[in-house]
Amino acid sequence: MKENKYDNDDFFEKYSNMGRSRNGLEGAGEWHELKIMLPDFKDKRVLDLGCGFGWHCRYAVENGAKSVIGVDISQKMLNEAKNKTKYENIEYICMAMEDIDFLEESFDIVISSLALHYIKSFEDILDRIYKCLSKGGDFVFSVEHPIFTAKGLQDWHYDGNGNILHWPVDHYFTEGIRDAKFLGEEVIKYHRTLTTYLNVLIKKGFEITGVVEPKPAEDMLNTVPGMSDELRRPMMLLVSARKR
Amino acid sequence: MKENKYDNDDFFEKYSNMGRSRNGLEGAGEWHELKIMLPDFKDKRVLDLGCGFGWHCRYAVENGAKSVIGVDISQKMLNEAKNKTKYENIEYICMAMEDIDFLEESFDIVISSLALHYIKSFEDILDRIYKCLSKGGDFVFSVEHPIFTAKGLQDWHYDGNGNILHWPVDHYFTEGIRDAKFLGEEVIKYHRTLTTYLNVLIKKGFEITGVVEPKPAEDMLNTVPGMSDELRRPMMLLVSARKR
Repeated sequence: MKENKYDNDDFFEKYSNMGRSRNGLEGAGEWHELKIMLPDFKDKRVLDLGCGFGWHCRYAVENGAKSVIGVDISQKMLNEAKNKTKYENIEYICMAMEDIDFLEESFDIVISSLALHYIKSFEDILDRIYKCLSKGGDFVFSVEHPIFTAKGLQDWHYDGNGNILHWPVDHYFTEGIRDAKFLGEEVIKYHRTLTTYLNVLIKKGFEITGVVEPKPAEDMLNTVPGMSDELRRPMMLLVSARKR
Repeated sequence: MKENKYDNDDFFEKYSNMGRSRNGLEGAGEWHELKIMLPDFKDKRVLDLGCGFGWHCRYAVENGAKSVIGVDISQKMLNEAKNKTKYENIEYICMAMEDIDFLEESFDIVISSLALHYIKSFEDILDRIYKCLSKGGDFVFSVEHPIFTAKGLQDWHYDGNGNILHWPVDHYFTEGIRDAKFLGEEVIKYHRTLTTYLNVLIKKGFEITGVVEPKPAEDMLNTVPGMSDELRRPMMLLVSARKR
């Protein structure tokens, strides 16, 4: 079943109270690195897969995008996105990312923030993205890092006193479903190796233009408790690519 | 100091007895994956950085290379390489990889197997490789995976009974020297993030054509004791790139 945890009332409430939900892009630890990987939006047609509250859709318009379509499976998320949005050239569509079927070359830029690890087949979604992207168009996405998703538990390994010892990695080459905890709820994610993320892109006809494992911004390191532990293992993977 | 552990008698003896040293390419667990990333050697001028016993140099010639230069810092390794080599178009040069200074566009292919993690500056060696590689030329290398080098100890995390629990990752974003144990001896290696390996390549003018974390070959999984643990974490990173 396609994951739609965000229409669950409790989960939605908790998600809405996260720093990244309340404070938008600036509240997201990776934004300072993702931002510089994004292409120039001026006069571009943009698709945002798993748009959530629509922060990236609005950013695209505020930076000159001609039109933006945001796709999300959660109606609750899109209702909130619409409440936050005053731009006429953003359209929100409630559907599973896996089902997108836009006309060829409908977009110049496709973005997706922390959503593709909910998708079972990276190959399939990539075929759909490739089709609807114009030649020379940009695809920029973030996912949870394969090192973060491999074991499945998504937690540190602690000593007997509750102190962090290290990040545990296991089952790396066993791709597929992981039952992870997120905001205290069970969430189904899909683990994929770095090899799969990058080589499928290359094989499908994309050129890789950037690969970044984001570190927390300096100001967050100094002000947010526990943030320095984020230097101990990579949590996210940001990739930019261009359709040949 | 540039690492030359291989001229130490004890270390050289132990290395010489490893499966990958005795049995050559077929004895290396990643060879079946590296092989298919290599370009066509026919009539090409090849440079092998950290060539060791010269297995890849000979492979290149046996697959049609016009000429091969193998560079290694260890005279003992090169003596053994020369003993094993009957081809006149392979030349071995005893020097540190860090010091190579070939004329512009001297080579069509540069390869390096499990050597670049001994190098302090990836940027600097990449400048040297870029310079001596022809336009459109291929650079293919393997290194220990950043997940393998991050913590430094390079060993599994065990329970009280000596059973493997998982692979520990720590200090990921702290690049630099790691004192690792290899064949019972202290060896200095340099940890770098995946971001550094791939983005430095892109920024220096290479196009990434393949990224593979090799899994053991099926026959090794079934016959070599402990090999199935190699599916639990990535140990190596293979990258192919092309000079623009």
